[in-house]
Amino acid sequence: MSFRIEKDTMGEVKVPADKLWGAQTERSRNNFKIGPPASMPLEVVYGFAYLKKAAAYTNCELGVLPIEKRDLIAKVCDEILDGKHDDQFPLVIWQTGSGTQSNMNVNEVIANRAHQLAGKVIGEGEKTIQPNDDVNKSQSSNDTFPTGMHIAAYKKVVETTIPGVKQLRNTLSKKSEAFKDVVKIGRTHLMDATPLTLGQEISGYVAQLDHGIKALENTLGHLSELALGGTAVGTGLNTPKGYSKRVAEYIAEFTGLPFVTAPNKFEALAAHDALVETHGALKQLAVSLNKIANDIRMMASGPRSGIGEIIIPANEPGSSIMPGKVNPTQCEALTMVCAQVIGNDVAVTVGGTQGHYELNVFKPVMAANILQSAQLIGDACVSFDVNCAVGIEPNHAVIKQLLNNSLMLVTALNTKIGYYKAAEIANTAHKNGTTLKEEAINLGYVTAEDYDEWVKPEDMVGSMK
Amino acid sequence: MSFRIEKDTMGEVKVPADKLWGAQTERSRNNFKIGPPASMPLEVVYGFAYLKKAAAYTNCELGVLPIEKRDLIAKVCDEILDGKHDDQFPLVIWQTGSGTQSNMNVNEVIANRAHQLAGKVIGEGEKTIQPNDDVNKSQSSNDTFPTGMHIAAYKKVVETTIPGVKQLRNTLSKKSEAFKDVVKIGRTHLMDATPLTLGQEISGYVAQLDHGIKALENTLGHLSELALGGTAVGTGLNTPKGYSKRVAEYIAEFTGLPFVTAPNKFEALAAHDALVETHGALKQLAVSLNKIANDIRMMASGPRSGIGEIIIPANEPGSSIMPGKVNPTQCEALTMVCAQVIGNDVAVTVGGTQGHYELNVFKPVMAANILQSAQLIGDACVSFDVNCAVGIEPNHAVIKQLLNNSLMLVTALNTKIGYYKAAEIANTAHKNGTTLKEEAINLGYVTAEDYDEWVKPEDMVGSMK
Amino acid sequence: MSFRIEKDTMGEVKVPADKLWGAQTERSRNNFKIGPPASMPLEVVYGFAYLKKAAAYTNCELGVLPIEKRDLIAKVCDEILDGKHDDQFPLVIWQTGSGTQSNMNVNEVIANRAHQLAGKVIGEGEKTIQPNDDVNKSQSSNDTFPTGMHIAAYKKVVETTIPGVKQLRNTLSKKSEAFKDVVKIGRTHLMDATPLTLGQEISGYVAQLDHGIKALENTLGHLSELALGGTAVGTGLNTPKGYSKRVAEYIAEFTGLPFVTAPNKFEALAAHDALVETHGALKQLAVSLNKIANDIRMMASGPRSGIGEIIIPANEPGSSIMPGKVNPTQCEALTMVCAQVIGNDVAVTVGGTQGHYELNVFKPVMAANILQSAQLIGDACVSFDVNCAVGIEPNHAVIKQLLNNSLMLVTALNTKIGYYKAAEIANTAHKNGTTLKEEAINLGYVTAEDYDEWVKPEDMVGSMK
Amino acid sequence: MSFRIEKDTMGEVKVPADKLWGAQTERSRNNFKIGPPASMPLEVVYGFAYLKKAAAYTNCELGVLPIEKRDLIAKVCDEILDGKHDDQFPLVIWQTGSGTQSNMNVNEVIANRAHQLAGKVIGEGEKTIQPNDDVNKSQSSNDTFPTGMHIAAYKKVVETTIPGVKQLRNTLSKKSEAFKDVVKIGRTHLMDATPLTLGQEISGYVAQLDHGIKALENTLGHLSELALGGTAVGTGLNTPKGYSKRVAEYIAEFTGLPFVTAPNKFEALAAHDALVETHGALKQLAVSLNKIANDIRMMASGPRSGIGEIIIPANEPGSSIMPGKVNPTQCEALTMVCAQVIGNDVAVTVGGTQGHYELNVFKPVMAANILQSAQLIGDACVSFDVNCAVGIEPNHAVIKQLLNNSLMLVTALNTKIGYYKAAEIANTAHKNGTTLKEEAINLGYVTAEDYDEWVKPEDMVGSMK
Repeated sequence: MSFRIEKDTMGEVKVPADKLWGAQTERSRNNFKIGPPASMPLEVVYGFAYLKKAAAYTNCELGVLPIEKRDLIAKVCDEILDGKHDDQFPLVIWQTGSGTQSNMNVNEVIANRAHQLAGKVIGEGEKTIQPNDDVNKSQSSNDTFPTGMHIAAYKKVVETTIPGVKQLRNTLSKKSEAFKDVVKIGRTHLMDATPLTLGQEISGYVAQLDHGIKALENTLGHLSELALGGTAVGTGLNTPKGYSKRVAEYIAEFTGLPFVTAPNKFEALAAHDALVETHGALKQLAVSLNKIANDIRMMASGPRSGIGEIIIPANEPGSSIMPGKVNPTQCEALTMVCAQVIGNDVAVTVGGTQGHYELNVFKPVMAANILQSAQLIGDACVSFDVNCAVGIEPNHAVIKQLLNNSLMLVTALNTKIGYYKAAEIANTAHKNGTTLKEEAINLGYVTAEDYDEWVKPEDMVGSMK
Repeated sequence: MSFRIEKDTMGEVKVPADKLWGAQTERSRNNFKIGPPASMPLEVVYGFAYLKKAAAYTNCELGVLPIEKRDLIAKVCDEILDGKHDDQFPLVIWQTGSGTQSNMNVNEVIANRAHQLAGKVIGEGEKTIQPNDDVNKSQSSNDTFPTGMHIAAYKKVVETTIPGVKQLRNTLSKKSEAFKDVVKIGRTHLMDATPLTLGQEISGYVAQLDHGIKALENTLGHLSELALGGTAVGTGLNTPKGYSKRVAEYIAEFTGLPFVTAPNKFEALAAHDALVETHGALKQLAVSLNKIANDIRMMASGPRSGIGEIIIPANEPGSSIMPGKVNPTQCEALTMVCAQVIGNDVAVTVGGTQGHYELNVFKPVMAANILQSAQLIGDACVSFDVNCAVGIEPNHAVIKQLLNNSLMLVTALNTKIGYYKAAEIANTAHKNGTTLKEEAINLGYVTAEDYDEWVKPEDMVGSMK
Repeated sequence: MSFRIEKDTMGEVKVPADKLWGAQTERSRNNFKIGPPASMPLEVVYGFAYLKKAAAYTNCELGVLPIEKRDLIAKVCDEILDGKHDDQFPLVIWQTGSGTQSNMNVNEVIANRAHQLAGKVIGEGEKTIQPNDDVNKSQSSNDTFPTGMHIAAYKKVVETTIPGVKQLRNTLSKKSEAFKDVVKIGRTHLMDATPLTLGQEISGYVAQLDHGIKALENTLGHLSELALGGTAVGTGLNTPKGYSKRVAEYIAEFTGLPFVTAPNKFEALAAHDALVETHGALKQLAVSLNKIANDIRMMASGPRSGIGEIIIPANEPGSSIMPGKVNPTQCEALTMVCAQVIGNDVAVTVGGTQGHYELNVFKPVMAANILQSAQLIGDACVSFDVNCAVGIEPNHAVIKQLLNNSLMLVTALNTKIGYYKAAEIANTAHKNGTTLKEEAINLGYVTAEDYDEWVKPEDMVGSMK
Repeated sequence: MSFRIEKDTMGEVKVPADKLWGAQTERSRNNFKIGPPASMPLEVVYGFAYLKKAAAYTNCELGVLPIEKRDLIAKVCDEILDGKHDDQFPLVIWQTGSGTQSNMNVNEVIANRAHQLAGKVIGEGEKTIQPNDDVNKSQSSNDTFPTGMHIAAYKKVVETTIPGVKQLRNTLSKKSEAFKDVVKIGRTHLMDATPLTLGQEISGYVAQLDHGIKALENTLGHLSELALGGTAVGTGLNTPKGYSKRVAEYIAEFTGLPFVTAPNKFEALAAHDALVETHGALKQLAVSLNKIANDIRMMASGPRSGIGEIIIPANEPGSSIMPGKVNPTQCEALTMVCAQVIGNDVAVTVGGTQGHYELNVFKPVMAANILQSAQLIGDACVSFDVNCAVGIEPNHAVIKQLLNNSLMLVTALNTKIGYYKAAEIANTAHKNGTTLKEEAINLGYVTAEDYDEWVKPEDMVGSMK
């Protein structure tokens, strides 16, 4: 492999000749061989591209950067956002906790690529653009990395998570409506209970997801606050007047998202409670989705020796040894995602607790976890939707049979003959393996006519059906 | 010990003669000897007292309960809320997951006590009030327990947690203002960085708590939704028309808090995402408080061989072996509370994932954890406030000395001579153990006059001070 | 209330006249009003009683404490262990993180009670025994508290947790043997699978608990290491020669448990990985128990519209609204305990990560969580055992019916006609609602005779039955 | 792109012509678009390669597979283990929870590649080797996936985690020895305490890692148990006699690791407590490493306004804005890894709790998390070792200064003049900003000669130095 020499304040470093990065990126590659390479999420790099461009525009507007430099920087940022330099960001999550090296990676790539765009050869001549003095002007890793991760997380949540969850929510809502008259047995404690409709049951899932989406949206305000302008410790040292507000406006413009400058930059650098807050809502969604997926696989269980009240799509052979087996695989993928998100929540929490003084140095691990969780929930909801939820159908025969068997229909008699006598009927029928009606009459508590009049499953599901 | 006989649908049970509870409570006492007795939080019992009274009023208003019974029930509920029967609730958290037995405990105590209030002797004659048919009328454990736990959690959050956090927040805000001109060294990565004021540093804590309070308040809407009226599976079976809405209004009236009937009762029984959501915000506060308490103990460390920039109150002898030692004990109590709340969040999360069909049967464990967390955060904030935060004072001599030593003041030269030359000055001074000014002049990059003009810590803290 | 004056190095404090504690306990009571009073587990106090007695014996033996003082101290320790002073330990978990104040609480109670035993009146005359110089001789909070918590945790694990788990394990083992010929349908992905015996299924639970007990026992070595003798920072300052080893021997003698002095006292003060390790094993047991309890409630679900393959004891009425309902309440209590233990594990973990320099100051929260988890698992296993597991019986009729329905019996044909043809038979039978045998013959793949010969559920359960 | 047609029991599927996989892999690719592609760890695939080869050998030996087929299968397995087919495994973690599709991916790749090796063209003619009937013979996904993940996890732990931790442990042990005479101030509660040596302090870290390694090794027995031979539900249906034991022996031979057949196959399929157990030990190591890394960065803090007792290597420029700044970046990478591992532990735990009946369907998520944790801990320890630990040096001047300042040296007087008088000396010196010696003499408690004789830091560090 051929190399060129790059320099930083510590001296010279050999860098692969075909790469755009510089000395500090190369040092980090060598010093942090932890896990697979390039694990730092590209979404964070893209977040940097937005902010570097916004900083260049703001610096130019405020008179501290020439327009030529602004345009070169902006052009490289656009290239990065077009995915043209994805292979120029080799660093890992497990680097310095401020993400300084990823900030420098971006600075170096922009500076070197700008040099090329200016018609020069990398490594030859004075750099057209300096990574620290130009690309990083009015910035610090300490305010850029949190800005980059807020941009990345916000985009992921609004572009992937929320649409994914809503897609599933809407399908479930249609199912709830479609099955609003399908009366079935209810189950509490996994045991037979009074009836409800399948539509009602599914409406509970819809309500869960509605609450979850709302909870997630509640966190976006905090997440929209950007640290940029705080520089090293939050004071904004070395930024021109008016910079913070203006740079956030540019970021909002470039991303099309309602970012604002953080009212308190000290919090924005030293704590990442915004990520903790948003991830908390992702975790809540995981809790909801786990319940929903679990119910669906239990109701679909069988085909002959389980519950079998609903039928879900058969998407693939289910077993390498049991021929003809079909499994609730989408439920399994979704609940595994939930387990991961619940774990990630703890990682984010632990990272969040350990800020020290003016800086939290768990930024990369927090960013990586929230991006993974937001992606997985969004993707898994879409996958679950198209491969499972849309195809859910009631198995009417099974539903009817299980409903009519139930001893808990006796509850309808509570208000007629009292809880104690009703219990006696149910217990006797259970003991004798008989029907409620038989025992109700045998015990002399109800006439056959009254029984038929009073115990109608379809009348027991309330006005909410 | 003397006993009396109580009955339920399963038969007779011997109950201590001096106790108000009945057969089902006694069964539960015997069947669940797990951990210390009476671990079910009294706050949940009080939540039940509110809802039983509200149910009696609503049932009466809707024509299904005589006014005499209503008044007897209400009177006992008021006695319970006055703390007169605290020793009548012996059950544990680790019972049936629907809390059925605690619901019955309340029903039985109300029925027996009402019998007494009616001038009768418990165990003699027909019960004046039936636990199931009267006290529990239009109810199920499945809707009462979640209602009771929402009432309890909501009250705890607004009466203990939020006031406690706000009290601390307000003290910190005053400190931030008071110390707004105390310029000190900043620290990132625990290493010397550019200066800020002590007031700015503390303003970050205030911002954290403001965000935390807001996040917690965002969850109250979900928590204000009451399951009552859903009865067994959410359909509202055996409730009179109009009951759900009316009973929530009564609860709102009796508690003085903005409770409403849950729009979707199926969600309200089968999932407890509202608790997950609220606890998520409590966990976020734990994350914030951990950071704050940690910073304060690090800044107060010493007295001679630590950081020592602030002085905190000495409340008690700190060591049983080291004479004269004083420790940041309030920071320790607070961070231990944070660890507990972070753990509780996982317990609540795990409980929340495992609802099945129409019922989540992790209600008591979820309720107990959220009540503990809400109490501990509120109490610990108050304790931390009165015993530590209010007494925080800067140690001006130390602050000045550490500030002036710092090599990171060199950052002010970036915009004058560029990052690379500034780095050279700092590195040289570090290597030689000299001052920045000496080396700046030696290296010929800055004159003494310019240095004094450009490097002023008080000018480096921005306009936010 | 009447008071007396107690003093410490900070001055005078008013203490309730009828209490044995002194100035520092009273300060702590006032300074840490966090959560309910007296939350510090009594088990820790008892752990202290053992070690204070052992320290007195060792100090006497090594010539630094007169025998009269030794005997007075020992006598009070014995009284404490007899439960005679349980109300003298009013402090909370949420105090100083070294537990200094609980150490002083014990020191003060011993000193004052010894004064009484010496025939004096508390508060009058020179103290017969000094809390710091005598009771705490050769000790520090920093080595006593970890010693006390190791004693408490070890005792709880071997006296409550392990016996409880073993009791349940033995019952399940008996059930496994008893049901070794009950062939039933297996289920994977909650879907019908090939058969196994109920005994085999339960043998998996036994294997889980055997592994869990072994994992827990593996941690006892670390837990048996005692910090005592390290004093303030681990160096053993102010201890007589030979003290560490001897005091551990006395503790081993007094408790009857194999405690040893920690080979490295610095680790024993600054880190509590032994608690992390033991709690990790408790968490593993929680994982196992959750699986077992969940399976049992699913298999017992019904009675008419669930799985219903086993019958579990009906211990109490299950519903306040649905007459005759019986629920798997022991499964619910147990799984709630599991959720708590999983949460506690995170609290212990978070506490464990945050030691600083020579001391971890999350001792009380770590101790409280491990004691709770160890107690709950032990108690819940016993409760589950006596109220559920011992009564588990197969419902033979249901088991037979579900077994014979299953399409997965087709797997027996794989080795005869290949996976693809077997799959075709199963799929056709599923589509047509017919039996495997019918379709096997229709498709011409198998004769009736061969089918009967090859597809025998009882031959499909292997030699492990 | 060109395609060929592959078939499974559900029908035809178009597969990219240049890929070795078949119908079921392609279905899974399309049905589970969740997160980045190919996220299923290659280590699991390699685990499958070992077991497929072992199964082929065992099947051949037991007379159910021709030797030609055995050799073809074995040859492809060897190619896979040589990394020649890494791009043939495109599936994600978030698939069916049994990993069936990854099992089939391996089966299909082996079958198609064997067809090539037999000189045929994929997609033409009868398959030389059948994926289900030959490659998967005597197997099920339900026993192969857990076997594959045990092989992968065991190898990762013994080849990466333990060597990495030991490397760091050995360096720290050498440092402990090298610094055994460097007397420094101790700190408890972050506050000045009695002295110890730097070597003693570091010996505590060594003891933590020794305990952690031992705890991890304790879990390997459980992890060495292989499910293979259980097939679909644990009964071993469709396996030849003697298969389980023999196949485990082959795996042990091929991997060179002490694998054995699981004594209870029902546990091995339905529960993955072995992963929970091993991950628990990884989490314990994370707890230890977090403490160690945290201490080191605090002791290295400064360079001028922190603690500064030790010097760690400067590996890279630390700030994009503050020239000359050097940060404890290896500590940060390591503590971020710890946060991730702590989170992963919860994901593994949650997955572990949710097995149902004969199968746990959280296999892929559990496998992925344990492999990540084991890799990260191993890598991060090595990185921390070579880039930080080996270069740790004491800053003798600072250490001496901070030691001599300390008021806690007064503790040496406890045994001479008692705790109360010693406290008075320390408190007075603290108040007056004077030295202990001055106040000791002023107060008349000690003569200058006695003071010098009694208060010698080097005598206060015990015999353990």
